[in-house]
Amino acid sequence: MTHPSDKALVPFVSVENMMKLIHHVGIEEMLRDLASYIEADFRRWALFDKTPRVASHSDVGVIELMPTSDGEAYGFKYVNGHPGNTRDGLQTVTAFGLLANVHNGYPVLLTEMTLLTAMRTAATSAMVARHLAPKGARTMAMIGNGAQAEFQSLAMKALCGIDTVRLYDIDPAATAKVTRNLAATGLTTVPCTSAEQAIEGAQILTTCTADKQYATILSDNMVGSGVHINAIGGDCPGKTELAPAILARSDVFVEYPPQTRIEGEIQQMPDDFLVSEIWEVITGAKPGRRDARQITLFDSVGFAIEDFSALRFIRDRIAGTPFFDPLDLLADPDDPRDLFGMLTRAQITP
Amino acid sequence: MTHPSDKALVPFVSVENMMKLIHHVGIEEMLRDLASYIEADFRRWALFDKTPRVASHSDVGVIELMPTSDGEAYGFKYVNGHPGNTRDGLQTVTAFGLLANVHNGYPVLLTEMTLLTAMRTAATSAMVARHLAPKGARTMAMIGNGAQAEFQSLAMKALCGIDTVRLYDIDPAATAKVTRNLAATGLTTVPCTSAEQAIEGAQILTTCTADKQYATILSDNMVGSGVHINAIGGDCPGKTELAPAILARSDVFVEYPPQTRIEGEIQQMPDDFLVSEIWEVITGAKPGRRDARQITLFDSVGFAIEDFSALRFIRDRIAGTPFFDPLDLLADPDDPRDLFGMLTRAQITP
Repeated sequence: MTHPSDKALVPFVSVENMMKLIHHVGIEEMLRDLASYIEADFRRWALFDKTPRVASHSDVGVIELMPTSDGEAYGFKYVNGHPGNTRDGLQTVTAFGLLANVHNGYPVLLTEMTLLTAMRTAATSAMVARHLAPKGARTMAMIGNGAQAEFQSLAMKALCGIDTVRLYDIDPAATAKVTRNLAATGLTTVPCTSAEQAIEGAQILTTCTADKQYATILSDNMVGSGVHINAIGGDCPGKTELAPAILARSDVFVEYPPQTRIEGEIQQMPDDFLVSEIWEVITGAKPGRRDARQITLFDSVGFAIEDFSALRFIRDRIAGTPFFDPLDLLADPDDPRDLFGMLTRAQITP
Repeated sequence: MTHPSDKALVPFVSVENMMKLIHHVGIEEMLRDLASYIEADFRRWALFDKTPRVASHSDVGVIELMPTSDGEAYGFKYVNGHPGNTRDGLQTVTAFGLLANVHNGYPVLLTEMTLLTAMRTAATSAMVARHLAPKGARTMAMIGNGAQAEFQSLAMKALCGIDTVRLYDIDPAATAKVTRNLAATGLTTVPCTSAEQAIEGAQILTTCTADKQYATILSDNMVGSGVHINAIGGDCPGKTELAPAILARSDVFVEYPPQTRIEGEIQQMPDDFLVSEIWEVITGAKPGRRDARQITLFDSVGFAIEDFSALRFIRDRIAGTPFFDPLDLLADPDDPRDLFGMLTRAQITP
């Protein structure tokens, strides 16, 4: 068998190599780098091909493809959502992604994206909080202590200077897990026994629970003036975490209104409910936080461009490192018209 | 670094392993097997989630995702089309695909699909010709001698009993390539210097040229009664190969009308131009060939379900063989909520 040419080989980042890369770069440094890539792509928002995600639903979950392109590179993420998976020891969400060259259609990167999505989600939250959170915020309430909690906490530390995280989950074991995982990070953790207790003195309130139904993790009377709410968990039709009255009192910022109106917290509000797009705040076209008493709310559902930014970062960052393997994914005959000849020669060549 | 668990590993079929598998099974045997899988899926056509392909267009080409699902498995193909690629020694079309379990969203197969698409396209053509071509057909005209020509020829031999292929291409070097490649296959090849000459005495006329514009590879006066036309090359808006008058005289069979009316030969015809769906012929709901003088025409554009069938075949066929590698694509923490713990333990475990 002749060795495939360079054209046939696509760099592949396995889960193991992604973990090595994260430790090589440093978790907080990588969260900052990812935030820079995401912010840079939000700045050139108009350039992107913003296709809605393509979903295949079943009784027990959904499989989605999330493509986008900036005219130079094309990226997509495969991601599933199966809430019942944890019963069988499987992840609720797994993901992988691909980046390709628009000019010839050849893939240039295939990578795991379960870890990378956790990193980019946290990096996006913290990048947005840097624009919206009150000045001098030091304390975050982290309500919902699942797989995303540590990433959110470290991103808010690395990008916004948070030094204390007040933790609450309906399952104390989840809070114990986050406390343990954050022990050596320099963050002060405060385990709490209620959401009310968790938000005491916090300037940033992050909600990221696994409730599938319309739930009220934060009720109206709990939220005082001047805070920034980072709402991660409401991310599909029928799944929300905040009382509508909070949305009514807040200035709401979203990634992409057509998607967020279906999937986000604002699915509870009328279709013409006023929101600002985050990219407009980043470019300076619209104001972010205007005063100290305002409640800002980032209604985050996750958008394809954030995955695209993360894929760009990985493509750039693995160059010259050992943290990828060449994958023989593309047939590359010497003569492009002679695919059959390549096949028959493979039989003969030892 | 701890070894990933079985849940994290996705079987991957590289180009090299696909070639080994094809030779292990035998090209003609595999074409027959693929045709059986495709025919079986056409028989249960109504079951499938028939999403249109998701295309990202640029000045020089297109990148497409083609998803489908039968409610048990979910499959998609990534495929590009860049006609200018051959100038740079690259393939016009490259592809890979993935099959996943609908019930938990976990991928179960990642495979090259450049070779596999060539195989499934030929298998589909021959499976359809078995239903539509005149009885006792022995000679095929192969007009357009590019990458698909040998696969078409061998599939028509393996499934329909064709023993002679009459070859024509505007580039004599392409015809010489096919003649050479088919020399040891048992097929008689007849190089021709015009399309008119190629179709003399042929019962099956296959057109598969690379013309990007509306072209007339077959004009009306060239096509006599009783033949089966297998039109492969007209497969995107603006690209056709047949004179409209031929379509008007033929009974036209298609994969999926909403897609074929945009991409196929019938894009030249009115929106209500009568066609039959191949799955209806296969199930017996509609007649195929009714008499010896009828012209049947398969207006083939390639549909996601054919890729799905091919993915199913590969998943089933590689079991117990060495023709795949386990790919560490999915993060698999011991506790699904503890993705961060998996990451930090990876730093410590040697």
